[in-house]
Amino acid sequence: MPLTPDQEAEIAEARATTRPTLRAISDGMEAHLYVAHPVLDHGLIRVVDYMGDDAAICQAARVSYGRGTKAVSDDAGLIRYLMRHWHSTPFEMCEVKFHVKLPVFVARQWIRHRTANVNEYSARYSILDREFYIPAPDQLAAQSTVNNQGRGELLEGAEAQRVLDILREDAMRAYDHYEDMLSTEGQKGLARELARMNLPANIYTQWYWKCDLHNLFHFLRLRADHHAQYEIRVYAQTMCAIVKDWVPQAYAAFEDYRLGGVNLSGKAAEALKRRLAGEAVTFETSGMSRGEWREFCEVWG
Amino acid sequence: MPLTPDQEAEIAEARATTRPTLRAISDGMEAHLYVAHPVLDHGLIRVVDYMGDDAAICQAARVSYGRGTKAVSDDAGLIRYLMRHWHSTPFEMCEVKFHVKLPVFVARQWIRHRTANVNEYSARYSILDREFYIPAPDQLAAQSTVNNQGRGELLEGAEAQRVLDILREDAMRAYDHYEDMLSTEGQKGLARELARMNLPANIYTQWYWKCDLHNLFHFLRLRADHHAQYEIRVYAQTMCAIVKDWVPQAYAAFEDYRLGGVNLSGKAAEALKRRLAGEAVTFETSGMSRGEWREFCEVWG
Amino acid sequence: MPLTPDQEAEIAEARATTRPTLRAISDGMEAHLYVAHPVLDHGLIRVVDYMGDDAAICQAARVSYGRGTKAVSDDAGLIRYLMRHWHSTPFEMCEVKFHVKLPVFVARQWIRHRTANVNEYSARYSILDREFYIPAPDQLAAQSTVNNQGRGELLEGAEAQRVLDILREDAMRAYDHYEDMLSTEGQKGLARELARMNLPANIYTQWYWKCDLHNLFHFLRLRADHHAQYEIRVYAQTMCAIVKDWVPQAYAAFEDYRLGGVNLSGKAAEALKRRLAGEAVTFETSGMSRGEWREFCEVWG
Amino acid sequence: MPLTPDQEAEIAEARATTRPTLRAISDGMEAHLYVAHPVLDHGLIRVVDYMGDDAAICQAARVSYGRGTKAVSDDAGLIRYLMRHWHSTPFEMCEVKFHVKLPVFVARQWIRHRTANVNEYSARYSILDREFYIPAPDQLAAQSTVNNQGRGELLEGAEAQRVLDILREDAMRAYDHYEDMLSTEGQKGLARELARMNLPANIYTQWYWKCDLHNLFHFLRLRADHHAQYEIRVYAQTMCAIVKDWVPQAYAAFEDYRLGGVNLSGKAAEALKRRLAGEAVTFETSGMSRGEWREFCEVWG
Repeated sequence: MPLTPDQEAEIAEARATTRPTLRAISDGMEAHLYVAHPVLDHGLIRVVDYMGDDAAICQAARVSYGRGTKAVSDDAGLIRYLMRHWHSTPFEMCEVKFHVKLPVFVARQWIRHRTANVNEYSARYSILDREFYIPAPDQLAAQSTVNNQGRGELLEGAEAQRVLDILREDAMRAYDHYEDMLSTEGQKGLARELARMNLPANIYTQWYWKCDLHNLFHFLRLRADHHAQYEIRVYAQTMCAIVKDWVPQAYAAFEDYRLGGVNLSGKAAEALKRRLAGEAVTFETSGMSRGEWREFCEVWG
Repeated sequence: MPLTPDQEAEIAEARATTRPTLRAISDGMEAHLYVAHPVLDHGLIRVVDYMGDDAAICQAARVSYGRGTKAVSDDAGLIRYLMRHWHSTPFEMCEVKFHVKLPVFVARQWIRHRTANVNEYSARYSILDREFYIPAPDQLAAQSTVNNQGRGELLEGAEAQRVLDILREDAMRAYDHYEDMLSTEGQKGLARELARMNLPANIYTQWYWKCDLHNLFHFLRLRADHHAQYEIRVYAQTMCAIVKDWVPQAYAAFEDYRLGGVNLSGKAAEALKRRLAGEAVTFETSGMSRGEWREFCEVWG
Repeated sequence: MPLTPDQEAEIAEARATTRPTLRAISDGMEAHLYVAHPVLDHGLIRVVDYMGDDAAICQAARVSYGRGTKAVSDDAGLIRYLMRHWHSTPFEMCEVKFHVKLPVFVARQWIRHRTANVNEYSARYSILDREFYIPAPDQLAAQSTVNNQGRGELLEGAEAQRVLDILREDAMRAYDHYEDMLSTEGQKGLARELARMNLPANIYTQWYWKCDLHNLFHFLRLRADHHAQYEIRVYAQTMCAIVKDWVPQAYAAFEDYRLGGVNLSGKAAEALKRRLAGEAVTFETSGMSRGEWREFCEVWG
Repeated sequence: MPLTPDQEAEIAEARATTRPTLRAISDGMEAHLYVAHPVLDHGLIRVVDYMGDDAAICQAARVSYGRGTKAVSDDAGLIRYLMRHWHSTPFEMCEVKFHVKLPVFVARQWIRHRTANVNEYSARYSILDREFYIPAPDQLAAQSTVNNQGRGELLEGAEAQRVLDILREDAMRAYDHYEDMLSTEGQKGLARELARMNLPANIYTQWYWKCDLHNLFHFLRLRADHHAQYEIRVYAQTMCAIVKDWVPQAYAAFEDYRLGGVNLSGKAAEALKRRLAGEAVTFETSGMSRGEWREFCEVWG
């Protein structure tokens, strides 16, 4: 369980009182505010603040004075048009701020998305908690034999147990030693900024992460994809569910054009046109590389 | 007057209804929401949305679970500390969205600040209004004789009148011709994306502009400065007044450390130390260039 | 002709002397260095500097110590793989710096691409030249009747002549008045930062513009597209030809996957699969909007 | 020693052959190209490519056609002017690409500077080497008693020895277990993307990191500062020495205005003015907080 009773109380308190505002509101998002969605064994993600809704996207696209008198169906059509034609700036007009607790090796992938604002818990300033990610048995996978950066079949029996034992014991020992080095009982106590270097990459950290909707969609397209590592994908999927409640029309367009969309190269489009014309295209006549052809067939048979 | 009755009505309607939210609220900012602050002769700036308040800066800096139980005075101290030590990320956790109406030549300076989101009224898609910036007589200045990119003394009498006549007449004629070329009465009518090229740089455009507080402060430091061109400076000053009401503690720190602060070079700091030690530092013994010495003396006498 | 004899001489001098370097070199790009490629009636684009080549993309992707001993064919395959899977960072490892002379209304579209570095000629500091873009007769188009932000058929005869006369005369008059207001003969002379506001959007400006290859590809995908306004598209096309000589493998991948690629929505992919299975998909059974269906049929018949 | 003989040979080969170019060249930087500068116990930093020199900064600021005929002294004056008045864009016109080998906990601080391009060695795709940062005895410091995120006095004797033993033994054990889990001898072998989570934050990683000069200066100002953690500061100092050879005039201006400069708040400037006027300013009459007053006295006595 990721939260202490104190933290639960802080969240409950924050959710107890509403105040009036003149700003745009998303009812779907208000229901999520501050609530901690558990991810992995000790992680969480929760919305701390947001700006805008579906209508705000259209309002910015139209540079209008009011909220607009257009029907909801007009907004949906405009949003689909903007998404289809890669008009990114109206989606940048919505913003969301998350509080995320996540293993360090996930944080290292996540931070590569640069168009976001981040405040991370400082291990120079503070002492990290004794919380480590240990994979569930159904995620303890072998190296893939076909994909150099992916997973293959599950480990089983003694091997799986050995891995879990190693991860748990090394984490506990590393944390014990972290505390030993920091301790000022009978010794000076090592600086926090040095002691932390002994901690493995599955320790949990946390941060505030703020991002606009366009860049969030970009993040989700890459990280909710099945090529993404499982441990970051589960965060992305949790965020997808939240965004769907926040801006349902924009999310529907994103789902159709990005998540569920297909990018065809010129060669692949040509191959499809030949097929539609009744021709039997083969690898040899496709002009594609082995890898491209394999990926093409995965989608188009 | 920058607003039509319809626009006034849209703003009044938007301000008529509050709705409950769980989010952080700034009462000072709620009073500004949607209200059009006039700038220059036909320009305006108004807040369309915002995220966060002073407490949100501290909440992010502390990566905390709740709003925090610290006293307001603790927040003020933390905010001053963050500003003094150039900790920029907590200030990035607040965001604001403006609707701005401004002359094109001001927009061209403004857009150079890249860390912001923008949706501009499209002159490919729509027809621009007949609104041009004509300087007030007290801003009709001659080229500065000491500053290559600044203004000197005011134009007077016949010269001032001639300039105003030129600006008004050329603007009106350009707009008449813009309409003539667009017209489809008895002719095909030139494409809007072409016709607009005849319009001078003092025509008004408008955009939605969204920015985080850290980057807004950077914008304001440069554009509220007396070196900035008057026509953009008045927008920056209007925004300063708004930000002061939104996040009073952060603005106070910004005012003390940035707007009212002084940057000393190593040479300038050395010169001051010698002065404090009783030495009479001259240009010759300062090691500074003429320009630096002049700027140094402007501040320190 | 966009260049003065002095400028021609400066370019010739810059191209006269080579110096030895240890850096990666692109022979195709060396041939372009400093050469002014004319664009529109008075515009130009020329390469001022560059960093990296095709091999540098692979070197960064492999985080290698040397230039790599891999065959050129391996590099081509890796580059195609990176492009296909949206690995953007290796392409960011190449950089190019252009000097561009362009009409202000084109500059205003261009600057919306924010991930680039820009130094523009300052009309606060300097006096602009008397150079204006006047469309060639084969670009003098009417407003499109199907696309709100595009062009339709060409203007002809008296209407075309009238437009050209307006554009030329208004430009010349505006520039005459610009000079009149600036003049210090018998008067104080208006500040440059004010006088410029009388100049129309077809006056030429110039800037240094620096961008990494990934973001340049993004720019080119949007601006070399047939939806882009003609006046910026010709700049993009000139850059495409330059980039093809600079990084031929990366450009080939870009051409296949981006310029010549097709993005299918989930609905469009579904429609294609049904067609491949022999079904006759109609607008009514496609689930697409009118606009999507029209765009779908343009590509797939 | 950070390099293998193979790597040494690759670097020697890259440095063996010069080729002619028309581009701007910095002789000081050519001497650094590819050379590995050792940092910490196993780290390194080396220049892989660069764009521009001091003259390129001025060339961009002037938007000129040639390299410029101005004297070197004019360039130095212009560069100092640009730095003094926060004109950042001309400095963005120079670019540098580094290959860096660094401990993961340093990489995590470094990556917070977002305006840069990065390609990191992938531990999903490849197996990390057995190389860990172990602090030298003169860096084994206790937690500071006055600064929550800094170091105090050195650990000594048995405590120092205990810390070094822990760091070494935990690192070796973690790496042994990493290899055990990856091994496919008699077992399936854990996926690399999972096994890496057992490795502590003092393991070395490496990346290509590319940055423009303006943003590099910003990085160096923060990370070469004495408040920065020692382990990142030594990288920044190595880069300072390289940049000084690359763009000596720009570096001199940076050193005077930024590294050696002093930022005064409005209150601090006021206090200095009162002192210069002969008044004895005390904490009580300064209007500053305790922290500000302490920092003020550190500089001004």
